[in-house]
Amino acid sequence: MEKRAELYRGKAKSVYATDDENRFVLHFRNDTSAFDGERVEQLERKGEVNNKFNHFIMQKLEQAGIPTQMDQLLSDTECVVKKLDMIPVECVVRNIAAGSLCRRLGVEEGTALTPPTFELFLKNDALHDPMVNESLCESLGFASQAQLATMKSLTYQVNDVLKALFAEGDLLLVDYKLEFGVDVNGNIVLGDEFSPDGCRLWDANTREKLDKDRFRQGLGGVVEAYIEVAKRIGLAL
Amino acid sequence: MEKRAELYRGKAKSVYATDDENRFVLHFRNDTSAFDGERVEQLERKGEVNNKFNHFIMQKLEQAGIPTQMDQLLSDTECVVKKLDMIPVECVVRNIAAGSLCRRLGVEEGTALTPPTFELFLKNDALHDPMVNESLCESLGFASQAQLATMKSLTYQVNDVLKALFAEGDLLLVDYKLEFGVDVNGNIVLGDEFSPDGCRLWDANTREKLDKDRFRQGLGGVVEAYIEVAKRIGLAL
Repeated sequence: MEKRAELYRGKAKSVYATDDENRFVLHFRNDTSAFDGERVEQLERKGEVNNKFNHFIMQKLEQAGIPTQMDQLLSDTECVVKKLDMIPVECVVRNIAAGSLCRRLGVEEGTALTPPTFELFLKNDALHDPMVNESLCESLGFASQAQLATMKSLTYQVNDVLKALFAEGDLLLVDYKLEFGVDVNGNIVLGDEFSPDGCRLWDANTREKLDKDRFRQGLGGVVEAYIEVAKRIGLAL
Repeated sequence: MEKRAELYRGKAKSVYATDDENRFVLHFRNDTSAFDGERVEQLERKGEVNNKFNHFIMQKLEQAGIPTQMDQLLSDTECVVKKLDMIPVECVVRNIAAGSLCRRLGVEEGTALTPPTFELFLKNDALHDPMVNESLCESLGFASQAQLATMKSLTYQVNDVLKALFAEGDLLLVDYKLEFGVDVNGNIVLGDEFSPDGCRLWDANTREKLDKDRFRQGLGGVVEAYIEVAKRIGLAL
């Protein structure tokens, strides 16, 4: 397969066309951004770590019956994915309160959320990814009710699979965001990535943060924490 | 019935106990506030106009089978209401995009919303009434799923009744917020008020604003507009 023009350059990944019109290449760069892209740094090895982490997780999800965009690893920092028409809405599940939820609603960090919560955010940097809901998505044309119902169901299925996987490594899956797209057959498929850039993971005993909050909060050891998480769930990097 | 101690003083209304433990008195003051209470002014006759407007609307809703807190008018600026345990969540339905929706989501003011949208906001001045959703309400204990389902259904029923009522007066019901409470029997009942302070009403032909946006935007003629709306729907003030 031949990699062709860059189609889209996100804050941490680039998407390339290939000679197969139904396949793209995702390139995981070392760029690490926070606060709507206001802060960007290069973290050595992060592209490689996230690429391999994402591939590992997507395989686990596929094994559990969740359709994903993943095709195969292509290089240390690249993978081949199926073409999706992405839905511009992020799905967030939270098992424990942290981050923006605490600021927005005055909830104490670490509060258990029972049942786990589900939120939708519009992907729009200029508007700072505002919170939306099913009704707004339908009436403003971001996604249909049927698509949203499938996205919600899949997002909770991912929670069951990954909470168990991380628990085996003495890790708490605090929260995460997923993005979905529509494949050539019209099916809703998990796209984008799953890595410690887009979720929160705490050590189950010490509650030490082992995710991108280390970068947001200037705690250091970002990539080292991602590698530690990978090791604990059975992926040597 | 005897009016007793002030139990709660809101930005525009006060609630008083009475000698009947299941009845409160709502006193509509002339205070008019905007921007989370940053701007407060006294508008002559507004308390009286909103009190009578609210009583008129609540009667219409009762006639349509929607349970409301209204008991009866007590004076020009006061009414007697049934005691409710208020749920701290505002229900918003929008037929046409305006206000915060346009700022948050980049939608042009005046865009028709089909179907009408439904949003929930936590009543919390310090947090600036943040948007929430059913899932957050349930997991954070603001309201149960069953209560939220009833609130949503009643909020849309109110839309059917009031869109038709205002349409007879050549008015567009752009959006509105409702608050609900639980009565002594555990039923969800419409509480608080319905007045041009908590909804948007435009002239159907000119799209002139005839609601609290006149105050927020410094257009003047606020109470005069409320009186005009009342007159058009059959209430002489």
